Amino acid sequence: MKLNCDMGESFGVWKKGNDCDVMASISMANIACGFHAADPDTMAETIRLANQHGVMLGAHPSYDDKLGFGRRHIAHSLPAIAHLISYQIGALESLCQLQNSTLHYVKPHGALYHDMMMDEQIFTVIVKTLSQLNRYRQQPLALMVLSRKDNQHYKAIGHDNNVSIILEAFADRSYLASGMLMPREQPNAILSTPAAIQHQMRHLLQGKVQTLTGDWLLLEVDSVCVHGDNPTAIQSVKTLAELIVAANHCGDDRE
Amino acid sequence: MKLNCDMGESFGVWKKGNDCDVMASISMANIACGFHAADPDTMAETIRLANQHGVMLGAHPSYDDKLGFGRRHIAHSLPAIAHLISYQIGALESLCQLQNSTLHYVKPHGALYHDMMMDEQIFTVIVKTLSQLNRYRQQPLALMVLSRKDNQHYKAIGHDNNVSIILEAFADRSYLASGMLMPREQPNAILSTPAAIQHQMRHLLQGKVQTLTGDWLLLEVDSVCVHGDNPTAIQSVKTLAELIVAANHCGDDRE
Amino acid sequence: MKLNCDMGESFGVWKKGNDCDVMASISMANIACGFHAADPDTMAETIRLANQHGVMLGAHPSYDDKLGFGRRHIAHSLPAIAHLISYQIGALESLCQLQNSTLHYVKPHGALYHDMMMDEQIFTVIVKTLSQLNRYRQQPLALMVLSRKDNQHYKAIGHDNNVSIILEAFADRSYLASGMLMPREQPNAILSTPAAIQHQMRHLLQGKVQTLTGDWLLLEVDSVCVHGDNPTAIQSVKTLAELIVAANHCGDDRE
Amino acid sequence: MKLNCDMGESFGVWKKGNDCDVMASISMANIACGFHAADPDTMAETIRLANQHGVMLGAHPSYDDKLGFGRRHIAHSLPAIAHLISYQIGALESLCQLQNSTLHYVKPHGALYHDMMMDEQIFTVIVKTLSQLNRYRQQPLALMVLSRKDNQHYKAIGHDNNVSIILEAFADRSYLASGMLMPREQPNAILSTPAAIQHQMRHLLQGKVQTLTGDWLLLEVDSVCVHGDNPTAIQSVKTLAELIVAANHCGDDRE
Repeated sequence: MKLNCDMGESFGVWKKGNDCDVMASISMANIACGFHAADPDTMAETIRLANQHGVMLGAHPSYDDKLGFGRRHIAHSLPAIAHLISYQIGALESLCQLQNSTLHYVKPHGALYHDMMMDEQIFTVIVKTLSQLNRYRQQPLALMVLSRKDNQHYKAIGHDNNVSIILEAFADRSYLASGMLMPREQPNAILSTPAAIQHQMRHLLQGKVQTLTGDWLLLEVDSVCVHGDNPTAIQSVKTLAELIVAANHCGDDRE
Repeated sequence: MKLNCDMGESFGVWKKGNDCDVMASISMANIACGFHAADPDTMAETIRLANQHGVMLGAHPSYDDKLGFGRRHIAHSLPAIAHLISYQIGALESLCQLQNSTLHYVKPHGALYHDMMMDEQIFTVIVKTLSQLNRYRQQPLALMVLSRKDNQHYKAIGHDNNVSIILEAFADRSYLASGMLMPREQPNAILSTPAAIQHQMRHLLQGKVQTLTGDWLLLEVDSVCVHGDNPTAIQSVKTLAELIVAANHCGDDRE
Repeated sequence: MKLNCDMGESFGVWKKGNDCDVMASISMANIACGFHAADPDTMAETIRLANQHGVMLGAHPSYDDKLGFGRRHIAHSLPAIAHLISYQIGALESLCQLQNSTLHYVKPHGALYHDMMMDEQIFTVIVKTLSQLNRYRQQPLALMVLSRKDNQHYKAIGHDNNVSIILEAFADRSYLASGMLMPREQPNAILSTPAAIQHQMRHLLQGKVQTLTGDWLLLEVDSVCVHGDNPTAIQSVKTLAELIVAANHCGDDRE
Repeated sequence: MKLNCDMGESFGVWKKGNDCDVMASISMANIACGFHAADPDTMAETIRLANQHGVMLGAHPSYDDKLGFGRRHIAHSLPAIAHLISYQIGALESLCQLQNSTLHYVKPHGALYHDMMMDEQIFTVIVKTLSQLNRYRQQPLALMVLSRKDNQHYKAIGHDNNVSIILEAFADRSYLASGMLMPREQPNAILSTPAAIQHQMRHLLQGKVQTLTGDWLLLEVDSVCVHGDNPTAIQSVKTLAELIVAANHCGDDRE
């Protein structure tokens, strides 16, 4: 189980997040590619920081919408989505190469992530795009998606295209009974206390989560997404990282 | 001797140039990367068109300035230039990979091209950036620069970094005695009649050009830049392509 | 009856439309405000051209989306729409003042126009915004909207807020039975032959239009929208202007 | 003597400055207009906050360069500068009108401010633009400029065009012997300790400043610029406001 976190979301003079502090506690960095956030300099600095901490690099492509931070749906044709993400992945990969590193996975951002989860055609075009890019890559790109009640269908599409699927869950977001996240603009969407986040993390480590309706949902989880852009985030992420270490040790004991 | 032309300079609904017609007559396409012109869809369409005509693909990175079409100087630190061009080259390469093709060279655009020619530090950081990217490429990137009176120094920097230098001349721009181009905003900067352009092309094929002062300049030329974005351009480019074919045949005869 | 046309839709080096030619035949210019098209220089030039031909100036505000030319829906809160259009109207008004002219009306563009027609809340916030701005204006701003089967409700909202409503119809777009336009991406959305456009124009001058289902729709029409950005546009717009003159003369005769 | 501060420099999700806290201590707010920072919603919120504290509203127009925060020179023709600032002033004025307020002055931002101070032609076109806009305004716009050794020439241009000039000095920036500010990228450009800033403020209240060479410069000062975007800023601005109150009282006593 690995922690992933959205990183490199500053833009020019505007700083966002606590990348320096958070990077030490995570193992996968979803790096903004200049469309919802970041610019080439910010991306290079984020790669440097991730490399310094041995954190795996992922691309975090988005709709082209800085003002809306990539959270607003903007209609795209399917080929346009292929071009949109290829552009961003390639731009980031090139900056990685300057620092002798490479991308391992792609996690769409914001509205594009949401649209991918809600629309199989969008999911499929993203998988196929990674598959096409992987023909030229030594390190193939995996695709990170939201783990839901039943992941068989999306995993099958990945399998058919030879693209690994990384299933992620959220430690700090509320779940609907469907296994989707409560939309961000809703009042209870975000777990705001460290206690609530750690509580959910412990459940996720056991492969389950309690939805807003009180029901339990079984979830396959390869990675847990945390957020580093709020005041209590740094300590919180550190604690979650420790919970994973503890869980891994227990697992070791049982083996 | 090859003709190169700036291609893919449309943006969204705004069309520029006559790419469909010009592509048939050139052998190197300098493809805009989304900073002075183009967007991911336009880039993909330009790659498709170039592939269809067997035209070699080059990246045409620029300062980030659509409103000024990349023609305005914007101060950048040297690392910022490395990041700026890496971002654009990678973005375009990724779109090439979707179509099973790859970039062969880089030609900076507009003010960045001018700054590269006037500032050895900028030239050097660009060469070193290509050198770094080439470590990960099967097809190494060459750098296209303006051929001047004396190209030894810039060629030496390329050689030291194992980056090939492609020397280009302009069929439709006036030359200063220094071997630099007359700035675009000056009245005589651009040769506007087909006759004048063909006249200059014939000289370039003989390795020389007549400057605005009437003097002759000897020029090493690997590629001649033409422009396809004006009414007479298509016929003009076609004629220039024929001049090259004719010159090559003469050369063949002599051998 | 007046012809209105979207004007000033160039952006930087990218030219769009035939403003110079079309301006001579229309009486209302919907001027892009820098969000879907145009920049301050283009706006100033468009104002100059409209003034030269005595054409009434209108603001053509849009969602902030040059790549999508303002045709893509982007979710906004109601206050955000008020701010969005105020910003653009004020920017254009200021450029008008440099040339001793002033705006007479506002016509939202593209997806914002569509959303205004489909969502009464959006329509209302736009009306109220104009009402607020009108408190400070000598020349009040009217709002141009799509004339539909029944315009009573929207006219009442305008009346309640003391904002005049200009009802427009389209000479070159197909109508649905509802009185809405066939969406632009549909095959029959745009009437492409001059004959078809003139045919529809003659009907509009009689206060009616034939929908795609063959039914007749009675339409109140204050202004007819034409488009100047295609090859046959200039002659077509000229012909439509002549049809209006002819219709007005007939009307005069009857009086 | 009034304190002015750059306000409203957030952009979308990216927050900058401590506007809520600083606004209580200043009397003039230089409000970003969407070109170097801000967006329509941020501008509206900044106006609301200024109105709440009874702070005078000024426009803070800039070159169009969010990534460079308006601090990079971008070449513009003189008419382009007129259009650039008119656009931004009008956009902000319109948002002010929604809240029953109006602009009182204009202070160009960053590189545009610097270029205005170094180039009389740019200064003149800005003055003439305000003069043209003032014909339509009840509340005329003044122009805020850097007070230097000798302000006679710039004041004369203002006077000839009937535009008031507000002379400002900087409490937290180092001065060169010429009366210009030490460029921001130089090591000593910014006074970083509260003590140093208050020290300079006391001198400014006496109409003088000590340059980096140790010489004293006499300065006419109508307003002092402070910055609110660093950790110690809020307390510092508050202290400076108290120094002004104290100075005014002393002045009162003497009368």
